Amino acid sequence: MFENILENVREKTPIIHTITNYVTVNDCANIILAAGGSPTMSDSIYEVEDITSISNALVINIGTLNEELVQSMIKAGKKANKLGHPVVLDPVGVGASAFRTKFIFDLLKEVNFSVIRGNISEIKTVYKGRGTTKGVDADDKDAVSDDNIDEVLVYIKDLSRKTGAIIAVTGAIDIVASSEKAYIIRNGHPLMTKVTGTGCMLTTVIGSFCGGNKENILEATAAAVSAMGLCGELAYNKLEKVGGGTSTYRTYIIDFMSNMNSEILNGGAKVEIR
Amino acid sequence: MFENILENVREKTPIIHTITNYVTVNDCANIILAAGGSPTMSDSIYEVEDITSISNALVINIGTLNEELVQSMIKAGKKANKLGHPVVLDPVGVGASAFRTKFIFDLLKEVNFSVIRGNISEIKTVYKGRGTTKGVDADDKDAVSDDNIDEVLVYIKDLSRKTGAIIAVTGAIDIVASSEKAYIIRNGHPLMTKVTGTGCMLTTVIGSFCGGNKENILEATAAAVSAMGLCGELAYNKLEKVGGGTSTYRTYIIDFMSNMNSEILNGGAKVEIR
Amino acid sequence: MFENILENVREKTPIIHTITNYVTVNDCANIILAAGGSPTMSDSIYEVEDITSISNALVINIGTLNEELVQSMIKAGKKANKLGHPVVLDPVGVGASAFRTKFIFDLLKEVNFSVIRGNISEIKTVYKGRGTTKGVDADDKDAVSDDNIDEVLVYIKDLSRKTGAIIAVTGAIDIVASSEKAYIIRNGHPLMTKVTGTGCMLTTVIGSFCGGNKENILEATAAAVSAMGLCGELAYNKLEKVGGGTSTYRTYIIDFMSNMNSEILNGGAKVEIR
Repeated sequence: MFENILENVREKTPIIHTITNYVTVNDCANIILAAGGSPTMSDSIYEVEDITSISNALVINIGTLNEELVQSMIKAGKKANKLGHPVVLDPVGVGASAFRTKFIFDLLKEVNFSVIRGNISEIKTVYKGRGTTKGVDADDKDAVSDDNIDEVLVYIKDLSRKTGAIIAVTGAIDIVASSEKAYIIRNGHPLMTKVTGTGCMLTTVIGSFCGGNKENILEATAAAVSAMGLCGELAYNKLEKVGGGTSTYRTYIIDFMSNMNSEILNGGAKVEIR
Repeated sequence: MFENILENVREKTPIIHTITNYVTVNDCANIILAAGGSPTMSDSIYEVEDITSISNALVINIGTLNEELVQSMIKAGKKANKLGHPVVLDPVGVGASAFRTKFIFDLLKEVNFSVIRGNISEIKTVYKGRGTTKGVDADDKDAVSDDNIDEVLVYIKDLSRKTGAIIAVTGAIDIVASSEKAYIIRNGHPLMTKVTGTGCMLTTVIGSFCGGNKENILEATAAAVSAMGLCGELAYNKLEKVGGGTSTYRTYIIDFMSNMNSEILNGGAKVEIR
Repeated sequence: MFENILENVREKTPIIHTITNYVTVNDCANIILAAGGSPTMSDSIYEVEDITSISNALVINIGTLNEELVQSMIKAGKKANKLGHPVVLDPVGVGASAFRTKFIFDLLKEVNFSVIRGNISEIKTVYKGRGTTKGVDADDKDAVSDDNIDEVLVYIKDLSRKTGAIIAVTGAIDIVASSEKAYIIRNGHPLMTKVTGTGCMLTTVIGSFCGGNKENILEATAAAVSAMGLCGELAYNKLEKVGGGTSTYRTYIIDFMSNMNSEILNGGAKVEIR
């Protein structure tokens, strides 16, 4: 299914300029390396344009947003747009504060994104301009299920049409959609919600996969989402065997990304196209 | 001994607004999840009030204090007080710089804390207004022992009376005290001092336990201190069996928190009440 | 070969004031503890002088440089110079932005360094005032090999003469040199490049070893470089046996540092003096 996507990343080793939160940044850097990219974290307004210029993709994550990051993210985003680099947005916790919500809409006016990835509550907030949120977690009543997936797909595709970005919604069921085509992905494991930053990590894996496949953003994003979920499954299976808790689980998730190859990915991907 | 404390956390999944240092923040987020809470790290002055408002408890840790955090901590603390949320303080390294020491006293004037947790040198500095410190570690000559514990208890209880906060002093022997009642806790392992942030992590576990048990702060804090120490013991026992060093040990500590339950906790707690 | 170097660190437990990036800071703190030091991370301009004053060595790493860190690094560096503390510089990504490059030269004018450690592209940029770089990784065409090592040694020794600092260049072959004497070190494993921050961690290990051996900076630095590479080898051997990926590998690297002793170090060191 995902032909050459992973091989392209490993072969090109794209440099991923990542402006992100200080909570999960180390795991993000390590999983970029595990995926086959090269992480470069830099957020000073004095250098973000220089750093973006030597990179192959840009990831913006607002997990610990502040006034200075606001400026740097816009500056880097515009530069990446000018250079034609894939730009990936993780609107962490949008809706949780007026500051975050306002910034996301300012950012969407200033920067064109290739991919926007969030949980369903975050994506709904981006779509509707307001939303409910439980901090950085999705609100349970928003959850995507087999019952509501058709309605969800309608507005996800509409959001893609309006923003020009591929939309990736992750949760028990993941959706990766353009305005016309959607991948429904059923990889992953519930224990992933007990490790901080699995969402942030996925966003940087998407950045890495897109950085190595810039002509094929939709499929690269779907492959990244499926690969991350599969790592969650494989890590859980190993954890069941050897024993341990959520910190060992975190280690195994990144381990399996570093050992991922196309055979494992295509053998384990649970993907349906609508 | 600790009836329903842990169950309440796991059932309510309290959101823990954590304003902390960038050194150990990831471990703090992961151990909050492991304990049963939901971590939300956010420190921008533009949003801390919004974030505190959707949370159930606030943790303030001054490990990497700077001028902006000073403002955010006071703002978030006042808001949490207004909302009646438990507020937990970790005065990391107080006494190591004039800036930290001054800030802690400003903070204590502006914000009412439910719990203050530190090593003995930090707590002594908070009590006496000055102190010796070896960076972020306690000064050996301050250490709590069976010889001096009675005198220590006198001023710990007095500090609790003066601040209105439960005081948690951790080291080889831990003390959790109100002005009237003290838990002496003998859980833990010396190797925990070779993992950065075990103190910071404990403070966020206290925040999680208090967030789920806001009517019972003293017992919740004692349970958190005992649980963390017990994780240190169980992790050490496992490390002895399978081999490894301090990084594996860190992983196991968080693992055991994620697998903790009331039976394990009450079976392993080494607690005496005075 | 390295007589008492490690013993001195473990015995003195030097406090290492570390002003570094937020990406790898937790691993740096843990490996300082593993090496036998005591980490103190603090970067506020309001307290860096106080913190340096109670420390035994200073490490400056510009991985996520910004305008405020610029001021703090210079202030702390000058204070450490006044106190006669070893000061170690990691010029991460110098050459990747005009801001970083300019700052490094400003810093070299203001502060005297005991050791400068970088990959070959970074060190070349420090020497020549400009350079090529691939973000935070060395440019392949700069790599030190048996073919070009003699020419490299000439300018490394010249850089040491000009700066007064021991120069540590790490890569497939490592060089630690004063203006007169060079250690060529062949420890390490290629998989270390797939873990973020192995370079940053090494710099803090150098800080720890120098903090415990301030009269013997050249040998302490060579011992640190050899010890870190050896941890990479031992961790790889263990990984081969038990299975896993790059995150487990990271854990093992720090584990082996915590279990390092002079016998293991001198038994495994692959060092040649020229």
